[in-house]
Amino acid sequence: MGVALALADRGVGRTAPNPNVGCVLVRDGRVVGRGWTQAGGRPHAEAMALAQAGAAARGATAYVTLEPCAHISPRGPACTDLLIAAGVARIVAAMGDPDPRTDGLGFSRAGAAGIAVTTGVREEEARRMIAGFLTRRARGRPLVTLKLATSLDGMIARADGESRWITGPQARAHTHLERSRHEAILIGRGTLEADAPRLDVRLPGLESRSPRRILLSRTPETGWETIPSPAAIADIPSVDRLMVEGGAQTASAFLAADLIDRLLLYRAPILIGEGRSALGDIGLTRLAEAHGRWRLTDARMLGSDRLEVYERA
Amino acid sequence: MGVALALADRGVGRTAPNPNVGCVLVRDGRVVGRGWTQAGGRPHAEAMALAQAGAAARGATAYVTLEPCAHISPRGPACTDLLIAAGVARIVAAMGDPDPRTDGLGFSRAGAAGIAVTTGVREEEARRMIAGFLTRRARGRPLVTLKLATSLDGMIARADGESRWITGPQARAHTHLERSRHEAILIGRGTLEADAPRLDVRLPGLESRSPRRILLSRTPETGWETIPSPAAIADIPSVDRLMVEGGAQTASAFLAADLIDRLLLYRAPILIGEGRSALGDIGLTRLAEAHGRWRLTDARMLGSDRLEVYERA
Repeated sequence: MGVALALADRGVGRTAPNPNVGCVLVRDGRVVGRGWTQAGGRPHAEAMALAQAGAAARGATAYVTLEPCAHISPRGPACTDLLIAAGVARIVAAMGDPDPRTDGLGFSRAGAAGIAVTTGVREEEARRMIAGFLTRRARGRPLVTLKLATSLDGMIARADGESRWITGPQARAHTHLERSRHEAILIGRGTLEADAPRLDVRLPGLESRSPRRILLSRTPETGWETIPSPAAIADIPSVDRLMVEGGAQTASAFLAADLIDRLLLYRAPILIGEGRSALGDIGLTRLAEAHGRWRLTDARMLGSDRLEVYERA
Repeated sequence: MGVALALADRGVGRTAPNPNVGCVLVRDGRVVGRGWTQAGGRPHAEAMALAQAGAAARGATAYVTLEPCAHISPRGPACTDLLIAAGVARIVAAMGDPDPRTDGLGFSRAGAAGIAVTTGVREEEARRMIAGFLTRRARGRPLVTLKLATSLDGMIARADGESRWITGPQARAHTHLERSRHEAILIGRGTLEADAPRLDVRLPGLESRSPRRILLSRTPETGWETIPSPAAIADIPSVDRLMVEGGAQTASAFLAADLIDRLLLYRAPILIGEGRSALGDIGLTRLAEAHGRWRLTDARMLGSDRLEVYERA
């Protein structure tokens, strides 16, 4: 299952509207097929692994990070049927598929065909792996990550706007890696006009994984998809993971609308003093309301900068 | 030496103008005396340990965190003479005393009297232990610690001034512990008028260790020692460790004057948005100037808050 999860990770931020799934086929102690949901959602992980295994899939165990789909879509056959047809002997899954078209039907149909089914193996990791897909299911909108790069005193720029650079090259490279794990990046018009950022992934080997660029703006802009308000993220097609990169006004609008699920805070060991704050009004009316909303889920040093990841508590 | 350092730690923030020293006397593998510099600087660590050991000091090894003083002061005899008179056989020291009245003379006089002398044992820890004393020697002013308690976005209060509470009880208790390790605390007039803070140590057993209270103000104030400008800290008597607790204007004035040696950053996992920034103008004219000034020397979680300690790089 660890291998299946690592394969699933390859699809993070690339498979919407489908979940990013991983699949490993093992027969007689040997891996005979590996698959992961491909960009755009097809082929599915199981289909890829089965194609790789060919006849070797007969009698194999399929480790899958999500229950195989049970519904036939115009885009391809149901993976449950493919697994049955290939003669797989056993399915070990991390979790059930909350999609109402499957939701247990994959397991029950496989069981009825004589396949032994186990589920709940490393479920928590599997749930985190498809957090974008699950957020879309639960909230009807993408998982939204807010990225902030600040000084120790919370500034994102000097008063005159100078912001290059606050964090160092390792932190900036990490931001590019995070970009590659989101289907789209959003900025506001202020940032567009001040910085004209490229928002692409400039990491060797990942250049092709630059996300789509979304602009929060009431007026259209050439080369950009635009949405008029934070709430409109629900309507952006094929985006289950959205990264908000600024500036302060845009970040605050998303926070005020309670639309941020994950904070990426990059902090440099510098003091700026008078400068531009990371946020503006986020709609807080008392300090007590601010508490209990965020929990630290990851932290690491990136050169002399520190990354902290907070998630909705 | 570890025990001697632990004893020296008891005097941090209490011994100015003297360094906080620790001393352990060991004979035949048994501790026969322990001493540390007492509040106000006298008795010295060696005098206390020798008084405790009495005749058992003869032939003992003295572990001291600093070279024994070699000069007779109106406040007491030289520790070197006391060690010679007591018949100590060996001195193991962490470092030499930079005071020009001693500066090697303690070691050489002890050596001339037939005492074996070793120095440089755990010197770096010993230097950190008396950082206040060393800063006074090197810069002619106390070591200055700036304490800031902020939200993740660097705010010290909401826009209307509400600041109770940003950090939790463990972080606040830690601030009180830090207060007890400074001879004085300084605030500005704005904080005095807005918050009338007590600035005392409210920790069981440490109530008596509340530091002196200094006000940065051009006009005197009953119950407070006042200084007119940050530079005037050099003239505060018997303070080798000074803690600056705010507000933003005072903190910025000290940073602008390059008078902060140590930052204590308490950060709560909350976002405030529009609020009062931790700092104002600190005299930065370009971002590049901000880099390389601070290095992280300690970090820990205090409940759900995080403490980071930075020191002058």
